[in-house]
Amino acid sequence: MTSPRLLVLIACAAAPMLAADNPPGLLGFLPEHATAQVALEKKFDAQLNPADLRAWLQVMAAEPNHVGTPHDKANAELTLAKFQEWGWDAHIEVFDVLYPTPLTQKLELVAPVAFTAKLHEPEIAGDSTSAKTKGALPPYHAYGADGDVTAELVYVNRGMPDDYKELETHGVSVKGRIVIARYGGGWRGLKPKLAYEHGAIGCLIYSDPADDGYGAGDVYPKGGYRPADSVQRGSVADMPVYPGDPLTPGVGATKDAKRLPLSEAKTVLKIPVMPISYADAQPLLAALGGAVVPPAWRGGLPITYHIGPGPAKVHLAITSDWSLKPVYDVIATIKGGELPDAWVIRGNHRDGWVFGAWDPLSGHVAMMAEAKAIGALVKSGWKPKRTLVYCSWDGEEPGLLGSTEWAETHADELQKKAVLYLNSDTNTRGFLQVAGSHALQGFVNQVAGSVRDPEMKVSVLERLRASLLVEGSKASASASDRAIAKQLAAGQEVPIEALGSGSDFTPFLQHLGIGTLSIEFGGEDQQAGVYHSIYDSFDHYDRFGDPGYHYGIALAQTVGRVMLRMADADVLPVRETGFSDTVGHYLEEIHTLADNLRAGTEQKNKLIDANAFILASDPTETYVQPAKEGAVPFLNLAALDNAVLRLKQSAQACDDAGAQSLAAGLPLTGAQRAEIESLLQGMEQSLTDSTGLPGRDWFRHMIYAPGLLTGYGVKTLPGVREALEGRRWAEAEKYSVITGHTLDAYSDRLDKLSALLKPVPPKN
Amino acid sequence: MTSPRLLVLIACAAAPMLAADNPPGLLGFLPEHATAQVALEKKFDAQLNPADLRAWLQVMAAEPNHVGTPHDKANAELTLAKFQEWGWDAHIEVFDVLYPTPLTQKLELVAPVAFTAKLHEPEIAGDSTSAKTKGALPPYHAYGADGDVTAELVYVNRGMPDDYKELETHGVSVKGRIVIARYGGGWRGLKPKLAYEHGAIGCLIYSDPADDGYGAGDVYPKGGYRPADSVQRGSVADMPVYPGDPLTPGVGATKDAKRLPLSEAKTVLKIPVMPISYADAQPLLAALGGAVVPPAWRGGLPITYHIGPGPAKVHLAITSDWSLKPVYDVIATIKGGELPDAWVIRGNHRDGWVFGAWDPLSGHVAMMAEAKAIGALVKSGWKPKRTLVYCSWDGEEPGLLGSTEWAETHADELQKKAVLYLNSDTNTRGFLQVAGSHALQGFVNQVAGSVRDPEMKVSVLERLRASLLVEGSKASASASDRAIAKQLAAGQEVPIEALGSGSDFTPFLQHLGIGTLSIEFGGEDQQAGVYHSIYDSFDHYDRFGDPGYHYGIALAQTVGRVMLRMADADVLPVRETGFSDTVGHYLEEIHTLADNLRAGTEQKNKLIDANAFILASDPTETYVQPAKEGAVPFLNLAALDNAVLRLKQSAQACDDAGAQSLAAGLPLTGAQRAEIESLLQGMEQSLTDSTGLPGRDWFRHMIYAPGLLTGYGVKTLPGVREALEGRRWAEAEKYSVITGHTLDAYSDRLDKLSALLKPVPPKN
Repeated sequence: MTSPRLLVLIACAAAPMLAADNPPGLLGFLPEHATAQVALEKKFDAQLNPADLRAWLQVMAAEPNHVGTPHDKANAELTLAKFQEWGWDAHIEVFDVLYPTPLTQKLELVAPVAFTAKLHEPEIAGDSTSAKTKGALPPYHAYGADGDVTAELVYVNRGMPDDYKELETHGVSVKGRIVIARYGGGWRGLKPKLAYEHGAIGCLIYSDPADDGYGAGDVYPKGGYRPADSVQRGSVADMPVYPGDPLTPGVGATKDAKRLPLSEAKTVLKIPVMPISYADAQPLLAALGGAVVPPAWRGGLPITYHIGPGPAKVHLAITSDWSLKPVYDVIATIKGGELPDAWVIRGNHRDGWVFGAWDPLSGHVAMMAEAKAIGALVKSGWKPKRTLVYCSWDGEEPGLLGSTEWAETHADELQKKAVLYLNSDTNTRGFLQVAGSHALQGFVNQVAGSVRDPEMKVSVLERLRASLLVEGSKASASASDRAIAKQLAAGQEVPIEALGSGSDFTPFLQHLGIGTLSIEFGGEDQQAGVYHSIYDSFDHYDRFGDPGYHYGIALAQTVGRVMLRMADADVLPVRETGFSDTVGHYLEEIHTLADNLRAGTEQKNKLIDANAFILASDPTETYVQPAKEGAVPFLNLAALDNAVLRLKQSAQACDDAGAQSLAAGLPLTGAQRAEIESLLQGMEQSLTDSTGLPGRDWFRHMIYAPGLLTGYGVKTLPGVREALEGRRWAEAEKYSVITGHTLDAYSDRLDKLSALLKPVPPKN
Repeated sequence: MTSPRLLVLIACAAAPMLAADNPPGLLGFLPEHATAQVALEKKFDAQLNPADLRAWLQVMAAEPNHVGTPHDKANAELTLAKFQEWGWDAHIEVFDVLYPTPLTQKLELVAPVAFTAKLHEPEIAGDSTSAKTKGALPPYHAYGADGDVTAELVYVNRGMPDDYKELETHGVSVKGRIVIARYGGGWRGLKPKLAYEHGAIGCLIYSDPADDGYGAGDVYPKGGYRPADSVQRGSVADMPVYPGDPLTPGVGATKDAKRLPLSEAKTVLKIPVMPISYADAQPLLAALGGAVVPPAWRGGLPITYHIGPGPAKVHLAITSDWSLKPVYDVIATIKGGELPDAWVIRGNHRDGWVFGAWDPLSGHVAMMAEAKAIGALVKSGWKPKRTLVYCSWDGEEPGLLGSTEWAETHADELQKKAVLYLNSDTNTRGFLQVAGSHALQGFVNQVAGSVRDPEMKVSVLERLRASLLVEGSKASASASDRAIAKQLAAGQEVPIEALGSGSDFTPFLQHLGIGTLSIEFGGEDQQAGVYHSIYDSFDHYDRFGDPGYHYGIALAQTVGRVMLRMADADVLPVRETGFSDTVGHYLEEIHTLADNLRAGTEQKNKLIDANAFILASDPTETYVQPAKEGAVPFLNLAALDNAVLRLKQSAQACDDAGAQSLAAGLPLTGAQRAEIESLLQGMEQSLTDSTGLPGRDWFRHMIYAPGLLTGYGVKTLPGVREALEGRRWAEAEKYSVITGHTLDAYSDRLDKLSALLKPVPPKN
């Protein structure tokens, strides 16, 4: 291609996004290329067949496929064979990771009455694989410690930090005791970690029926929700410190990698922990005495919930096989014709906890459909400008093992070449769900405006917009939902969420600083019910997940457009004010947080001084009033304030320069174009700092991180926000400077882009 | 008494209220009288003995004592004898009222499976009266219709207006069906009324365990909450239209009163209705099909709640004895020495649904302790200036029968003489709870500041203030709770609530316009659990209500001070800015309501136009989008706005004039003093209008009313507020004028008071 002319780095921000049938005007494309691109997408769509998805899902979910199983390897080989059949250059990459599996498990109530927990999910009529569990692991938590402990039980609600504050007011300590927490309220791995930090010697986590059992809807097999004996497995590795193989932080777990001894692996927990069903939990909870729980701690079992400690006393014993096991990543590429060293990467994991039909195979089969369709386009003569890389990850469930080890192994190359990492995972009927790098928000809006919702006669964007408008109009809407609805009503584009963790995007975004998107559909399903249980099966998904597989097709269409446009765009389709506006909102939240902390501390200390908490308490119940806290100083966040101010100006200038350049005919040389490509490729990496976040230097992104105390939930501007939340004022000021530096580096690149894009003044 | 000097109509509004041990400076008293008054209160306190309360409670709650029982009459005679023994001039007044009692009851599930409801509360070990229910009525709803109906069942959540809107979105009608509603969310009587208005032919109301059973706390006898077979009885007469005997609206149900035929009694419901336990409700609810309920509709039973209709089909049959029964009010007086035609009235009902230990006898025995102590003061030579009237009401439970018929019978005399009606009902351990006429707010603060909390070393006022500060500081606090805490933190007095209905104050305040207070303690009990069941017993109250009867004593002390000070005050202790400020807040709420209605209607109509509700819905479930509503016009509320503006000025002037008059030595003649007494006596009546509220002219108070669609819950500025809520714009403007007129009449009296109190300019 010889044209020096290129197009539309930036479209008009206020213009409504293009609907499905509008004439092309694609972000990042010259008009003549845009027309071809839309035609290409039509050919791509024509290759997608829901029957493929169903057939692949049925085969891949036919047997247990967690790490180390024969079927996991067979699925890798099937995926490899399919990719190769479809014309991709594919191979399997193997890593050897620490992946403990249970050998023996025991849970019993030893006082005041005896009860032995079943710890088993029985066969369910109509669910064919529930009877075929040969090779499956029993319900367990990966990376909990081995142990044999007997102690009094304490109910800790969700087991999150505020719950321990509440326990303190009741004068209850978990020291030397075993805690029982219900799922929800924060990532499961934090529950045993916080329990351990508070002195507990064991931890049980159960699924309360109010959350995903009969309280939420009809249970399986009548409906899709969790039956009484079903258990949510899961990882409890301390992934907010670092994900991946606990023995090889920061480096790939290749055959010869240097490994930590197990005793030094920071992400392996120190106490035994076990997931249980609500059938097993009820006798334990019913045996608790002590205070009746506060209203917010009540679950859906037909009992009065008590805190304890005791008289319930439980015996918990776990032994595990701590050997290394192999994970099999399938990596497939189609080399770009024009910019082969620019990689557009797509991934979805393949391993499940048992059969994994919903999680992750529903997303995986959509990814396979994309790969098949792209293969057909290639066979028909098309070739992408940039290189497409498709990845079938293994070992996501225990700790993002396959993706993290691959990203760590290929870190340098990825930081030089990757222009996008696009992830999906469980995909079901419902609404578009997008999160990721906000410079891509406008692009995602345009793509989503061109995909038709399978159930409604509008685009998936319009359906999402409608649902956000309705959510924000409800009397029960959160302040944030109201704000979004207000923005949408004012004609602004649909916002995308920020990414925390919980799937394979984490090493790409937060360790390597690669621009990232997560795209899935969901919200009309009954997934929660079988999440990480043996009933996450083909039969269940086929009835409740996405009957007809139309949303699998919608995912392939949406992701396919993103991949194809990123691959073929004349210039990468970013809109920088999407990022700067969003960071501006985050900064406002930081200031509000500091102000609220200050006012709240003052109010609380005054109440303590006035003895108000004691006077308001019931003297017949134990009540320990909270301790006074130090006043919240006014903080110097000027570095961050100034950096955000500059960012907004630079982003606006860059967007404006793009628009002006377009109007002037985009007179750029090939060298200038290459420089623009290079500047955009490394853009997101400016947001990382090698210092990393406090106590977890693996996490280098200064805008998005999983919360150290939320696990999956995102913390934006995390260095500053978490310091404030933890009342570490000096740390907040330090990270204001560090975060400001990353934003300044980002602005430097924006300014360079602006200079390159600024039309040359006419010669007189 | 000859002194023309009198005192302190008004104390400094911003000054902190007097603590228990502060030197006297009593609102309404000359300093020399104040000292004597405080001494009198000490003598009063010395007469109070918790052992009395316990002994009376045990006797009076020993047998069923609902209207028409021998024990109800025996309790009246006991009360009469006690009052007479204590030196009161007492008599029994009898009214003959319509009071239907059940003859036969049947409830069965006839499809898809058969189940017959138990409809019976069994004996409980350790609760001695639960085995002695001879003469008790089975659980039932008074004033429901007789009937024999069989139809499909529909679950309607709380059965309130918004619930029917939700049902419409699911495409479910209750027409020709039987509804089942859970208790709570609004007054029970509205549930069958609204069901009937929506076409239902029968109604069941059950106690969900999440509200007052095992979900709330340990059930009786382990704890105090509702056991599985316990049932909440109650009245379902349409009391928001008028309370009292359905056959004699507006007039006393004396022997020869003209009575309506039953068919014309507007407050008797048109369909059969029955209260049931959660043990009886569970099989019915579990048999429902149709859509799964929205999250807010879920209760605490271990089932998935469905809306129906059907396949559950129930048969409900009720026949009743519709004869008249006698109610026995005990009326006792001690005539005032100086102002015998100024009546300070005190009441508490005596009838329970079965044994009635909590409701109402706990309050009744405190009232008896007051009467005994006052009798002792009289015997020791004291005589009140004004007349004290103590009333033991019968028939409150079925419909405020005893109080309403007495108030209607003596309406003219009461309107001429009553200066206060003070009510209590159930009284338990915990915090002071005061509601009533806001001109008395400052007085109540002062009284409450002089009563020591039995559990804490502070006054009951300080404890209440602390609890409001703590409530308002919680993250979960309502906007209203936050606002109150903010006011308190700024040093303002503790606000009292506005009165809706639910006890015997209603005829006095809302029909006759007599200044009213309701004073009780509560909030540390587990009452809800046995409310209106056979387990509302002496044994239960003795363990869970107020062990030691210290809060019974605290109630007697608080109420005793109010009664004695109102009786002896040199001038009635009002503070008018307490009223004008509060009405100012109500008016702000009215404007906010109108604005929110306007904005909400516009937003909703836009969403309907954009098809957003449909797009946001799940097409596999029935969804009917709401209909568009007419735009909300800007309303002319100028009459009310101007009246409130004037009220604020007049109230401030009146309070100021009182303060100035005090500073000048209060130079008033006896005639002026009598005029002031007369102006203050009729003050609250200026707030009534003979037009009454729309469709319920019995309710004449234009500031406080029970909501037509809330039942017990108050609506302030009800003529305007309910018109707005019902989108009746012309009615809102009409009642803005009517309400404005009543406030102007109130201001006229304030201005007259100011003129009387204004110091005479010094003669030169």
